[in-house]
Amino acid sequence: MKFLTFSEQGQPRLGMLCGENRVLDLTRALADHGVAGPTCTVSDLIALGDEGIRLASDPVLLKGVDVAALPALDTLHVLPPVEMKRNVFCVGRNYREHIIEGNLARGRPANAFPEAIEFFTKAPTTVVGHGAAVQRHAHLTDSLDYEVELAIVIGRAGVNIPREQALEHVFGYTIVNDITARNLQARHGQWFKGKSLDTTCPMGPVVVHRSAIADANNLAISLTVNGELRQQDNTRDMIFDVAAVIEQLSAGLTLQPGDVIATGTPKGVGFALNPPRCLQVGDVVSATVEHIGTLTNHIVD
Amino acid sequence: MKFLTFSEQGQPRLGMLCGENRVLDLTRALADHGVAGPTCTVSDLIALGDEGIRLASDPVLLKGVDVAALPALDTLHVLPPVEMKRNVFCVGRNYREHIIEGNLARGRPANAFPEAIEFFTKAPTTVVGHGAAVQRHAHLTDSLDYEVELAIVIGRAGVNIPREQALEHVFGYTIVNDITARNLQARHGQWFKGKSLDTTCPMGPVVVHRSAIADANNLAISLTVNGELRQQDNTRDMIFDVAAVIEQLSAGLTLQPGDVIATGTPKGVGFALNPPRCLQVGDVVSATVEHIGTLTNHIVD
Repeated sequence: MKFLTFSEQGQPRLGMLCGENRVLDLTRALADHGVAGPTCTVSDLIALGDEGIRLASDPVLLKGVDVAALPALDTLHVLPPVEMKRNVFCVGRNYREHIIEGNLARGRPANAFPEAIEFFTKAPTTVVGHGAAVQRHAHLTDSLDYEVELAIVIGRAGVNIPREQALEHVFGYTIVNDITARNLQARHGQWFKGKSLDTTCPMGPVVVHRSAIADANNLAISLTVNGELRQQDNTRDMIFDVAAVIEQLSAGLTLQPGDVIATGTPKGVGFALNPPRCLQVGDVVSATVEHIGTLTNHIVD
Repeated sequence: MKFLTFSEQGQPRLGMLCGENRVLDLTRALADHGVAGPTCTVSDLIALGDEGIRLASDPVLLKGVDVAALPALDTLHVLPPVEMKRNVFCVGRNYREHIIEGNLARGRPANAFPEAIEFFTKAPTTVVGHGAAVQRHAHLTDSLDYEVELAIVIGRAGVNIPREQALEHVFGYTIVNDITARNLQARHGQWFKGKSLDTTCPMGPVVVHRSAIADANNLAISLTVNGELRQQDNTRDMIFDVAAVIEQLSAGLTLQPGDVIATGTPKGVGFALNPPRCLQVGDVVSATVEHIGTLTNHIVD
């Protein structure tokens, strides 16, 4: 099951993907069957816990529905799936080959891997949906870069979660493009500043429920700029897998339903290319994760 | 004017300090005079902008009130003044002498100062009020440390704010104790993890409106543990002053009313003492900033 939040006449609506790319208005479908369900966003659905999934998976919702007549995803104004109540949690260097390319680009020993997860955050003002414009911020950076990432969406609160129970706290998965101003990331010491320019966290288009992902640690992941392949890898190259991310992040820190955790990016980022190739106005960036979908955004002045 | 949020019968209430330590229930006082004012927290007051301050400063509110009969601050259940809608913004190494003590403790050159502000964040689940318990997190850290900080509370939204206009965006100031697990701060590379354990961001007790602070860059600041003075300095020792913090943080990042920015801590932190002296269960920590007040919390198992 894939869920999204979209806008209709200025109001957020909860959608469910049917087939490849058709969108059922889930709130309306439930109401049509006399069910009081989640009000209007994926966050509302998450808040209902297992009951939300039970409601959404009732086959009666599609009875008599002509799926081919439903609106296609790309004809809708898609919003970020989740309403952020705090910053997006992010994992730094997590893919073997990406760590090596970063070390080489910075003149460090190639095999200097982190011992523990490097967590940082992106402010909620960075988050935009599928199809939204990303600002170039040219007055601040000469090195705006892309980073495709698998993101975990938390469904159940918890603290000090052992890795054996970690997946029970997952609602599902989405895609994040952790766009980064490399010069600010370096100049400000801590990464937050270079990671938190407005509109630099495209997220979506959908959240896939965990029941539809057999193994989040074995998903093809890739990114193109103007159709040119830049990043291509598999989440099994992560040093810290999904359960390890949840275990380390939740140590002493209570995770809450609706929290989003981006799990790091694979090799192929622009600043590590020779010569570096950064994002420019007009670029179209598409981030894809297997079994989730493709998140596309464009860069504007 | 000093404002706070306190709890009465489980409900948040907006209070205003009268005299040294008496608290007027501002929402009730306004209602008694037939004025529909802020509903129940300092965040609601901030949302009203200048109108909120105009309402709160009407002398009619105190007409006939026996200030001495009002409840004292320390008899109330004080909540964090602001409801966090995203992470607390924080400034790393900002006081000259603290940078030197940190450099020496880590075997670095004493005078290695940051070129630009090192921003990081603390999750909203860290925030607790005056008088609240702070967890020791003994299973995770052997080095829980205190950091008294002047914190800016944003009143008016803005992005790319030049330093000349920075103070116009300030609602007021509060105190933050940026409690830090030093081992996690070091082990996880980025500081977020060591800065975001639950309950490690005491905040308050009050927010002082900016009209009551002549110069935020010239305030005595200190901290005691069990009555023993550990930190004592003045905000004029900050390398990056309040206006610089707002200018650099707001570059490309939209600040919003209610945002809180902790501005860094002075010398005297526990891990830099010889030998290091970290926080233990039972410790009582009091953080004081001139013209704001004293924020006291205790460490529990």
